[in-house]
Amino acid sequence: MPDFAVQDLISRTLAGERVPLARALSWVENEHPQAGALLDACFERSGRAFRIGITGPPGAGKSTLVTQLAKAYRSRGETVAVVAVDPTSPFSGGALLGDRVRMVELAGDPGVFIRSMATRGSMGGLAVHTAQVCDVLDAAGFQRILIETVGVGQSELEVAQTADSTVVVLVPESGDGVQAMKAGLMEIADVFAINKADRDGADRAAFAVRSALELRAPTSEWVVPVELAVASRGQGVDTLVERFEEHLRFLSAGGGLERRRRQRLAQRLEDMVLDAMWAAFEDRVSDAERQAMLDAVVRREATPRQAAERLMHLAAERDDAALLD
Amino acid sequence: MPDFAVQDLISRTLAGERVPLARALSWVENEHPQAGALLDACFERSGRAFRIGITGPPGAGKSTLVTQLAKAYRSRGETVAVVAVDPTSPFSGGALLGDRVRMVELAGDPGVFIRSMATRGSMGGLAVHTAQVCDVLDAAGFQRILIETVGVGQSELEVAQTADSTVVVLVPESGDGVQAMKAGLMEIADVFAINKADRDGADRAAFAVRSALELRAPTSEWVVPVELAVASRGQGVDTLVERFEEHLRFLSAGGGLERRRRQRLAQRLEDMVLDAMWAAFEDRVSDAERQAMLDAVVRREATPRQAAERLMHLAAERDDAALLD
Repeated sequence: MPDFAVQDLISRTLAGERVPLARALSWVENEHPQAGALLDACFERSGRAFRIGITGPPGAGKSTLVTQLAKAYRSRGETVAVVAVDPTSPFSGGALLGDRVRMVELAGDPGVFIRSMATRGSMGGLAVHTAQVCDVLDAAGFQRILIETVGVGQSELEVAQTADSTVVVLVPESGDGVQAMKAGLMEIADVFAINKADRDGADRAAFAVRSALELRAPTSEWVVPVELAVASRGQGVDTLVERFEEHLRFLSAGGGLERRRRQRLAQRLEDMVLDAMWAAFEDRVSDAERQAMLDAVVRREATPRQAAERLMHLAAERDDAALLD
Repeated sequence: MPDFAVQDLISRTLAGERVPLARALSWVENEHPQAGALLDACFERSGRAFRIGITGPPGAGKSTLVTQLAKAYRSRGETVAVVAVDPTSPFSGGALLGDRVRMVELAGDPGVFIRSMATRGSMGGLAVHTAQVCDVLDAAGFQRILIETVGVGQSELEVAQTADSTVVVLVPESGDGVQAMKAGLMEIADVFAINKADRDGADRAAFAVRSALELRAPTSEWVVPVELAVASRGQGVDTLVERFEEHLRFLSAGGGLERRRRQRLAQRLEDMVLDAMWAAFEDRVSDAERQAMLDAVVRREATPRQAAERLMHLAAERDDAALLD
């Protein structure tokens, strides 16, 4: 694609046109050769959107809640983008639910944009791609970005933590506060939502979460709210939106927003350096060479440590050879 | 520590002595300077144990099930090691539940060894450490190694997949098969356990999982069994053990065990190379330099991509300088 076409895509994306925007997001996800110029342009214009991460165990009703949150924000007059991070099957390599059948009721509203991302790529790949997708949506003018993850594992937490604020969604059956602590959720939650609160045990679950929160050493002045919701009926959704906005005001007033965004960028920079180093390694050591070394490990002729050292050495030699040419 | 003391620790670990073994495992987890020699010795002697990964959402009763599985294996005359991978709080950095209060009933049996690991470290760190800890336990003579993870996220799946065989534990409330598919569990499960099956909906949950399994394209001759269990009362545990052993026989007969172990080692080698590259980068580019680059990104004077490129360039220059000295 000639440069003027790239420039055209960039300026139309920044203007918020939907078709170029969708294409720009595909460039980012697929690491298109021209994605760099696009991302640079978007990064410079980003930082205005408030990014909210939504995480919690499978089955907590996150997609339904996100749909309702988007509607609530729309009725407040804010534009909303939804980034739904779907799991990749290790075998099929694709996003499972595509563009989220449950979010159809948002379709047709020009103030809403929904994007599914497959969880793909090694290392920081997913968190980096999520942050980049959010940069593009941010630069395209969306005021609130809802980042929904599927699981509650380490990499989902990393994705949720690319956001400015994180809500953890549980259900009454999610067990006592200890279960939530086990999953490492207590420390990342800025807001808790007990969804499906028309089921038995919702008050007890909220109480358990509040008790567990009180056991923590306080790390900020922010008192993490624990709210009940029945997303399928829209109950409790406005309250949640109000809590997010309170948290945004809290962060903005105390310098916390700047600190968090700096941390996010630091992590992102580290992830990008790692990705680039791995790409350089793959350039220097062929797949056949790596397979041969693996064969030696499988036959117990080398240990993993020795094999890793030899591969590193090989890559370094070729670096040097390239320099001395 | 002089070399003869290292040799002593290694030979006593290989002999299965518990105190040296515990110390050896701490070396591995803490990346002790002498851990390499220990790991090399253990790797050469490893490959005899059957490693079983146990994963599933928080609250599925995995710890209780693992305790019962260990007891069942003991009554079959096998020695058992349990590796419980606990989440690290992003703030506290420690394992939450220490040595697993619920497993006290296994204490005192010399044929059982229990080890908790904190989920720590960048990138592949956790999966690599888990595999190394298993190598040591394997070399120390434990015949079955149960690797329990807490969450169901990507990095927990990676840990579970350091095993030869993986059981996914759900509860009747885990929702329909689609929820399990969303979490990427369908593709990694060699065996499903519906725990707490004395609750309502256990049969329905098992049916849903079986239906979801039937929707998959078959990837092997192995028919993934879905078993009900009530681990707290020991029900269904012997059946699960029998299924694991059947899967082991299936894998061994068809060459699948070799293929899987080769895949595991390939991943491990990649993770180790990445770790080593990052360490080399940190040697070459100071923290102050990285912070200065981050400042530029925060001020939008550089984009993340430009900053990553400059940092890589700096590291490469210093590599070259070291060579030309």
